[in-house]
Amino acid sequence: MITINEHYKKLQASYLFSDIARRVATYQQNHPDQRIIKLGIGDVTKPLPPACIQAFHQAVEEMGKEETFRGYGPEQGYPFLREAIAAQDFQARGADIAADEIFISDGAKCDTGNIQEIFGTDIVIAIPDPVYPVYLDTNVMAGRTGVYRDGRYDGIVYLESRKDNQFIPDLPQTPVDLIYLCFPNNPTGSTISREALQVWVDYARQNKALILFDAAYEAFIRDPALPKSIYELPGAREVAIEFRSFSKSGGFTGTRCAYTVVPKDCRAFDHQGNEQPVHPLWNRRHSTKFNGVSYPVQRAAAALYTDEGKKQAATLVDYYMGNAALIRSEITALGYDCVGGDHSPYIWIDSRTDSWQFFDRLLEQAGVVCTPGSGFGRCGAGYIRLSAFNSRENVEQALQRIRESLS
Amino acid sequence: MITINEHYKKLQASYLFSDIARRVATYQQNHPDQRIIKLGIGDVTKPLPPACIQAFHQAVEEMGKEETFRGYGPEQGYPFLREAIAAQDFQARGADIAADEIFISDGAKCDTGNIQEIFGTDIVIAIPDPVYPVYLDTNVMAGRTGVYRDGRYDGIVYLESRKDNQFIPDLPQTPVDLIYLCFPNNPTGSTISREALQVWVDYARQNKALILFDAAYEAFIRDPALPKSIYELPGAREVAIEFRSFSKSGGFTGTRCAYTVVPKDCRAFDHQGNEQPVHPLWNRRHSTKFNGVSYPVQRAAAALYTDEGKKQAATLVDYYMGNAALIRSEITALGYDCVGGDHSPYIWIDSRTDSWQFFDRLLEQAGVVCTPGSGFGRCGAGYIRLSAFNSRENVEQALQRIRESLS
Repeated sequence: MITINEHYKKLQASYLFSDIARRVATYQQNHPDQRIIKLGIGDVTKPLPPACIQAFHQAVEEMGKEETFRGYGPEQGYPFLREAIAAQDFQARGADIAADEIFISDGAKCDTGNIQEIFGTDIVIAIPDPVYPVYLDTNVMAGRTGVYRDGRYDGIVYLESRKDNQFIPDLPQTPVDLIYLCFPNNPTGSTISREALQVWVDYARQNKALILFDAAYEAFIRDPALPKSIYELPGAREVAIEFRSFSKSGGFTGTRCAYTVVPKDCRAFDHQGNEQPVHPLWNRRHSTKFNGVSYPVQRAAAALYTDEGKKQAATLVDYYMGNAALIRSEITALGYDCVGGDHSPYIWIDSRTDSWQFFDRLLEQAGVVCTPGSGFGRCGAGYIRLSAFNSRENVEQALQRIRESLS
Repeated sequence: MITINEHYKKLQASYLFSDIARRVATYQQNHPDQRIIKLGIGDVTKPLPPACIQAFHQAVEEMGKEETFRGYGPEQGYPFLREAIAAQDFQARGADIAADEIFISDGAKCDTGNIQEIFGTDIVIAIPDPVYPVYLDTNVMAGRTGVYRDGRYDGIVYLESRKDNQFIPDLPQTPVDLIYLCFPNNPTGSTISREALQVWVDYARQNKALILFDAAYEAFIRDPALPKSIYELPGAREVAIEFRSFSKSGGFTGTRCAYTVVPKDCRAFDHQGNEQPVHPLWNRRHSTKFNGVSYPVQRAAAALYTDEGKKQAATLVDYYMGNAALIRSEITALGYDCVGGDHSPYIWIDSRTDSWQFFDRLLEQAGVVCTPGSGFGRCGAGYIRLSAFNSRENVEQALQRIRESLS
């Protein structure tokens, strides 16, 4: 008898975005003349940088000619992209990462979801709350949790991000083996100092734990003192895997390219307690279940590392960060506490009421869509997330409407 | 302590292609003037059809303009592609498959590797021998096998493809739950009749089993009486998942696009024996761990369904099949038994000696590279695989050299 993976039964259906869509549709039906402005979703709105478009076209052209056509590429990605990443994203910042420690993929969602496969199923997982749901769901599917009750899965150690810890979780009180961290954070927009991140690296070294560091939003960091990569910290190579994405930094959400860094000396252990390198495990997983990213897409991503591409991507990020600054200053002026928006495209706002109540108020009184924080976990209750991914005009108009409705 | 997935330790390092590369390099070093012709690898050599290139360029152009830019798309793929597939690959052939039963992905390797996640770990797996190694390796990683000894994994039911069963495996003698089938087959090139495939569908229905049908090579089928899809057979919707790819049919090995079909009434069971639909399980897996295929790539794939695209892709397939016919007739004329090459790009040749010995002989006497059949499993011993993916000129020259060395 072909049986199903019973762990899927434990998964909670996420109604967050479908609930939002339903409420927005109802409102629009009742107010057909209102132009709704969406600051809810974390998707970019500006087109790909011209340098990417040019490289993309050129690579498509190559695929149409016998002399330059490319079939299967290396599963780990082409050297031209891996080398640019190692040199510019890491070595230039003093992080000792080599090209063959970079694995090109089609998305950080895939990588952060798949990475858990290479670890034992009997480990203890630490996951932030609030959090991007992929970390949790993929561990539920793999059977690393118990049942869901009172809003949480048994067996998971939740790392709470609250106002009283400045949205930087404290070290866990009970032993954990695999730790998910995401900075700049989705959804809170908070980021972490070198000193605070070093505490986690040291913890992992002392406790034979491993950190999965999701740095998908590093491009939004403005303060040069803040770490963009965990490998800027001493001792991180042995205990951390890092995830990066071109989705937000280069506008690649619909183009699909990302990468994962697994240093050669990153280690886990077998059940006898012997050290085992993680790099060959991920390489085996990656080359067995993945066949590389589309060649033209890799060429488009590599264009982000040219002088032109860097300038254009910076302009893109600056534009969104201009929106974020406007949102942050307006919300603060209205007397609400918020975090994020200074080194991230998200602003996490204490609504001083129920998340959904505030969502409804913004929708009905201002025609603005936000994301209710309670959808990201128990610690998100009472918060809402505003996103800076929209046009300046829309953001300015949304803020004017919010000002009129809340003041 | 962070532990590794210990099942990875059971995996046998595949030395097949690295062994081939090493022997070829040594030979080239000793014969620097010899032009080696490679008929070993299963990768296409002709460029993308012009219709794909045109659609690809146009979509790249859209990604560069604010009005037409696309961010995140549906994880399951864009309706324009899913609808074309359902209508032309299935409904036009009398197979009742709807657009929302199609899941677009970046490769059949990924899909055939990932699909096992949605099933229990205590099921019995039936896998062909010889076989494309992904089916086996991904089940080893998931812990569904015992250790490896005498060339096989404990706990796997091997479905033997031998000359005496015309390379179509017999039904298993012991009960199995999940059955991998691949027709036209890689590596043997054999294909299956409606009647023989119906036996498997009936077996699955009667034994509460499920078939994973890999049809990545269906475009090469010439005989209209042969099934291209398992859904052309009555009763298959409930018991089969089908995998397709644009890699070989459209030359997409480096462009990356494929799809998986999960009918809404395809069923598995929970441990209490209750029927459970498979579609929501795969949809959950796909949308949790995957973020859709690059938009321009989906547009390029959709161009294969236009009148122009269809003609161009057919020309591509005809070209390779012309090569295959030449190989098949020459090898037969030389007195060797072979299968495949009539409805597939692979020709599976009984070398009447050890696979590697014959490999060395072809390399040293003809300067031609093949793939030793023993690399695909125990039943491949004594066979070699020749691939039709090369230029006509190279194939003709390779055959002339083979003729001179073998006759």
